[in-house]
Amino acid sequence: MNYRKINKFLSEILILVAIAMLPSTFICLFDGETKVALSFLYSILIAVVLSVILKFISRKQSGGFHSREGLICVSLSWILISLIGCLPFFFSRQIPSFIDALFEIVSGFTTTGASILPDVESLSRGLLFWRSFSHWMGGMGVLVLLMVFVPKSDHNTGSTMHLLRAESPGPNVGKLVPSMKKTALALYGIYMALTVLDFIFLIAGGMPPFDSVCTAFGTAGTGGFGIKNDSMASYSPYIQNVTTVFMLLFGINFSCYYLILTKRFISVLKDEELRAYLGIFIGATALIAFNIYNMYSGISETLRHAAFQVSTIMTTTGFATTDFDKWPVFSKTLLLCLMFIGASAGSTAGGLKFQRLLLLIKNLKRHIRQTLYPNKVQIVRMNGEKVNEKILESTNLYLIGYTFIIVTSFLLISIDGFSITSNMSAVISCFNNIGPGLEAVGPTCNFSGYSVFSKLVLIFDMLAGRLEILPLLGLLSLRTWKRK
Amino acid sequence: MNYRKINKFLSEILILVAIAMLPSTFICLFDGETKVALSFLYSILIAVVLSVILKFISRKQSGGFHSREGLICVSLSWILISLIGCLPFFFSRQIPSFIDALFEIVSGFTTTGASILPDVESLSRGLLFWRSFSHWMGGMGVLVLLMVFVPKSDHNTGSTMHLLRAESPGPNVGKLVPSMKKTALALYGIYMALTVLDFIFLIAGGMPPFDSVCTAFGTAGTGGFGIKNDSMASYSPYIQNVTTVFMLLFGINFSCYYLILTKRFISVLKDEELRAYLGIFIGATALIAFNIYNMYSGISETLRHAAFQVSTIMTTTGFATTDFDKWPVFSKTLLLCLMFIGASAGSTAGGLKFQRLLLLIKNLKRHIRQTLYPNKVQIVRMNGEKVNEKILESTNLYLIGYTFIIVTSFLLISIDGFSITSNMSAVISCFNNIGPGLEAVGPTCNFSGYSVFSKLVLIFDMLAGRLEILPLLGLLSLRTWKRK
Repeated sequence: MNYRKINKFLSEILILVAIAMLPSTFICLFDGETKVALSFLYSILIAVVLSVILKFISRKQSGGFHSREGLICVSLSWILISLIGCLPFFFSRQIPSFIDALFEIVSGFTTTGASILPDVESLSRGLLFWRSFSHWMGGMGVLVLLMVFVPKSDHNTGSTMHLLRAESPGPNVGKLVPSMKKTALALYGIYMALTVLDFIFLIAGGMPPFDSVCTAFGTAGTGGFGIKNDSMASYSPYIQNVTTVFMLLFGINFSCYYLILTKRFISVLKDEELRAYLGIFIGATALIAFNIYNMYSGISETLRHAAFQVSTIMTTTGFATTDFDKWPVFSKTLLLCLMFIGASAGSTAGGLKFQRLLLLIKNLKRHIRQTLYPNKVQIVRMNGEKVNEKILESTNLYLIGYTFIIVTSFLLISIDGFSITSNMSAVISCFNNIGPGLEAVGPTCNFSGYSVFSKLVLIFDMLAGRLEILPLLGLLSLRTWKRK
Repeated sequence: MNYRKINKFLSEILILVAIAMLPSTFICLFDGETKVALSFLYSILIAVVLSVILKFISRKQSGGFHSREGLICVSLSWILISLIGCLPFFFSRQIPSFIDALFEIVSGFTTTGASILPDVESLSRGLLFWRSFSHWMGGMGVLVLLMVFVPKSDHNTGSTMHLLRAESPGPNVGKLVPSMKKTALALYGIYMALTVLDFIFLIAGGMPPFDSVCTAFGTAGTGGFGIKNDSMASYSPYIQNVTTVFMLLFGINFSCYYLILTKRFISVLKDEELRAYLGIFIGATALIAFNIYNMYSGISETLRHAAFQVSTIMTTTGFATTDFDKWPVFSKTLLLCLMFIGASAGSTAGGLKFQRLLLLIKNLKRHIRQTLYPNKVQIVRMNGEKVNEKILESTNLYLIGYTFIIVTSFLLISIDGFSITSNMSAVISCFNNIGPGLEAVGPTCNFSGYSVFSKLVLIFDMLAGRLEILPLLGLLSLRTWKRK
C-alpha cells in the first residue's frame, strides 16, 4: 500500500476542508455569534494540525498509486472530512450529541439531506451555511475539487484517474477532455455557472440573499437541507417552480452540458439516458397529479406539488413543498420506486442512476433473447454504441451490492422498533442520498428517534451510496490491508 | 416454432391433470357431495376434450425442440393446468368468482399457499384434497411428473432436458443419472418416500388420516394450504414439530438425498448450500426466540413457534402456528428478509435459493478483489469446484429480473390502497411462493380484498416465481413469436 501518497492526499483534503469552513466563520463573526465562530476556528485548527501531522508521519513510499490506493484514499477522505466537518456543530453545542453531529454532516457531504434536527430554524446562520455548503462540495466531489486547486505536476494522470473514478457517480466515468485536471475544471465550471444561475433566478423571485445562496447550494448538490422547518413549503410558487427546474437540471449528466457547450446538440437529443430521465419525470408527475387531484385546489397547484416532489425524489435532493406522506398509497409507492433509481450518471444525484437502470434492462432483454436463441451472438448497445462487457458485469454486481446493503441495513435498524415502512424508506432514502422517507422519517419528521447504532448504520449507508459501494466495501475487506 | 411437439406436450399434460382430479372426485362421491363430484367430472371432461382437440389441430412439424420450445411449453403448460384446475372450485360455486378460483389453484400449483378463502373449513373435502394435491404435483414439477409416466422412446433426451431445465428450481439443474427419465423417476421416488414418511409421523401423532394426507402434501410441496382456518395452530406441539422438521427436509436439495442413498456422506456434509441453509435456520430461530421470549410461556413454546415460523418462511411453505404479524418489528423484518432467500436449489421450495445467494455473495467478493488487484485472475468456487462464468452471469441476471418483477408488481398493486407493508409483503410472498405476508395479508388474513387487476398481477408473480422468471418473460417477449 502506498501510504505516503495516501497520507499526502488526506493532508491536502484537510486543508481544503479548513479553507471551506472560512466563509461560515466570517458569517458567524458578522452575526456576532462569537461562540459559534470559535467552534469553527477550533475545527479549522484541528484540521490544520492533523494535516501537518499526516504530512510528517508518512512512511516510505512503496509502489505506485493504483485502483486499490484510489478506493482507500477516497473512502478515508470522506470519513476524515466528516469527522472534522461535524466538529463546529458539536463544539457550539447546537447539536450536543457527537453522533448526531456526524450524522448531520455526513448527510450534508453525501448530499442526502436527512436531518436529526427537529427545529432547523434555531441553528445559527453560520452553521446553516456550513450545512448547505457541504452539499455543494459533496455534490461534485471533494477530491475532484482538490484537483482543481492543486498544481497539475503534483498529480500524475494515473492517480487522479483512480480518484475520479472512485468518487464520481455512474458506471463509466467519461473524461470530457483528455486531461483529468481539465475535466475536473470543466465539471466545476459548469457546476458553478448553473449554481450562480439558480441563485439569480431565486433572488429575482424575491428570496432573501442568504436563503437563495443556501437553497442554490442544496439544489446544486441535489442535497436537500432546507433552512426552514417546513423545507420549501412557505416559499412562493415561483420559487418552488424554479427549484423544480434546477433540481432536474442538476440531475442531468454533466457531459450533456459539455456537449451543448461544444455545440453537439444532436448527441444530446439522442442521449438515451436523458430521454428516459425526462420521460419518467413527465410520466410520474402526470400519474401522481391524477392520483392526488382532489387534495389540492386546482390543476396548477396539483401539478406544482406533483412536479416538485417527483423532481426532488428523482434527483435525490429531498426538499419538500408538501407532506407527501399524506398522499395516497399509489403515489407514495411510486415515489418509493423512484427513490431506487435516482437521476443520471455523471450528475450530482445519488441512487442507482438511469444509465445503470437502462443497462440492467438491456442486459436482461439480451439474456432472454440469448435463452430463446442460444446460437446467436447478442450485443448490448447504448446510444448506438456497443457496451463493454466489463461495464455490464460491474453494473450487475453493483445491483448485487446495492441489494445486500439495503437488506442488511433494513434488518439491522429494525431493532429500534419503528414501523417496517419507516425503516425501509429510511434505508432507501439514506443509501440513495435522498433525505426524507415515509412515516417516522417522513418529510415533516426527522431521524433523531433512531438509536446510535441505527444512526451509524445509516451513516455507513449514506457514505456507501455516495461513493457507490465499492470504496467502502474495499475499506472493510481484509484483503485490502494484507501485505503481499 | 415447433407447434406440433408443443401441442403434443400440452395434450399429454391435460390428460395428466384429468387423472390427477380422479382421487378428489372419488372423495366427493364417498362423502355424498354429488354436486362437487359433478364439477370435477365436468372439468375432467373439458380437459379430455381439449386434449383431443390439441392433438388433432397440430400443425406440420417445423424444426427441432430447443430451449425456446422448452420455455414456451413449460409456461403454457402451467397456464393451461391452472385454467383447468380452477374449474372444480368455480363449477361447484364454492369459489363463485373465476379469478378467485384461478388465484387459488395457481397458488396451489406454484406451492404458494396464498388463499382468497376467509373460511377454509367450509370447503368440501374433495376440494380441500384437490388444493393440497395441487401443491404436491406443483412442488416437484408437473412436466417432470409427465416424464415419469410417458414411455422413454417418446421423448428424446434433448426435449426432456429443455423441459426439466425450464421447470426445475435452481441455477443449474444437475442430472442425477445420465438419463433424464431416470432422473425424474429418482426425484419422484425420493419425493414420494419422504411424503409417506411425513404421513406416518403425522398419523402416529394422532392426526386424522385426511388431515395427515393433506398436511403431508402441503409440506412436501412446500405449499402451505391448510385445511383449518387457523392453519396449524390448533394441532399438538408434536405435530407442529414434525412439520417443522419435514418442511426443512423438503427444503434441502434433493441431490443430497441421492448422495446419501449412494452412500456419499462426505459430499453431503461438505455441501456449502446445505451448511448455509441449516446455519441460517438455527441463527434466525435463535434471534427470533430471543426477540419474542416474553410473548409465550416458557422456552419450549417460544422455540417451537420460532422454529416453526422460520422453517415455514425459509422453505416458502406458509403454514403458521401463531400470528407472526403481532411479533416485534425485528422478528417481522427478519422473516421478510428470509422470504427473499427461500430454501435450497433443487428442492420444492421457491425464492431466490441459497445456492444463488452464495453465488451472488462470492461473485461480489470477487468483484471487490478484482477492483483492488486488477491484474490477478480471480475464480469463484462452489464446493471446491470452479463455477462456470455463464452460471454466474445468469445468476446476476436472475437477480435483475427478480428485482424488476418485484418492484413493478409492488407499484401496480398499490393502486388498491392497502398499506405499503401489506403490498410489499404480498408481492414478496407470492413471487417467492410463500403464502402469508404481513398486515392485510398476514397469517390470519387472506388475499380476497385485492382487486381483480391486483390478483392477476399476483397470479403472474406466483407463476413467474415458480418457473423462475425466464419462461414467463420469454412468453411475453415478442421475439419468441417472430417467424424467422
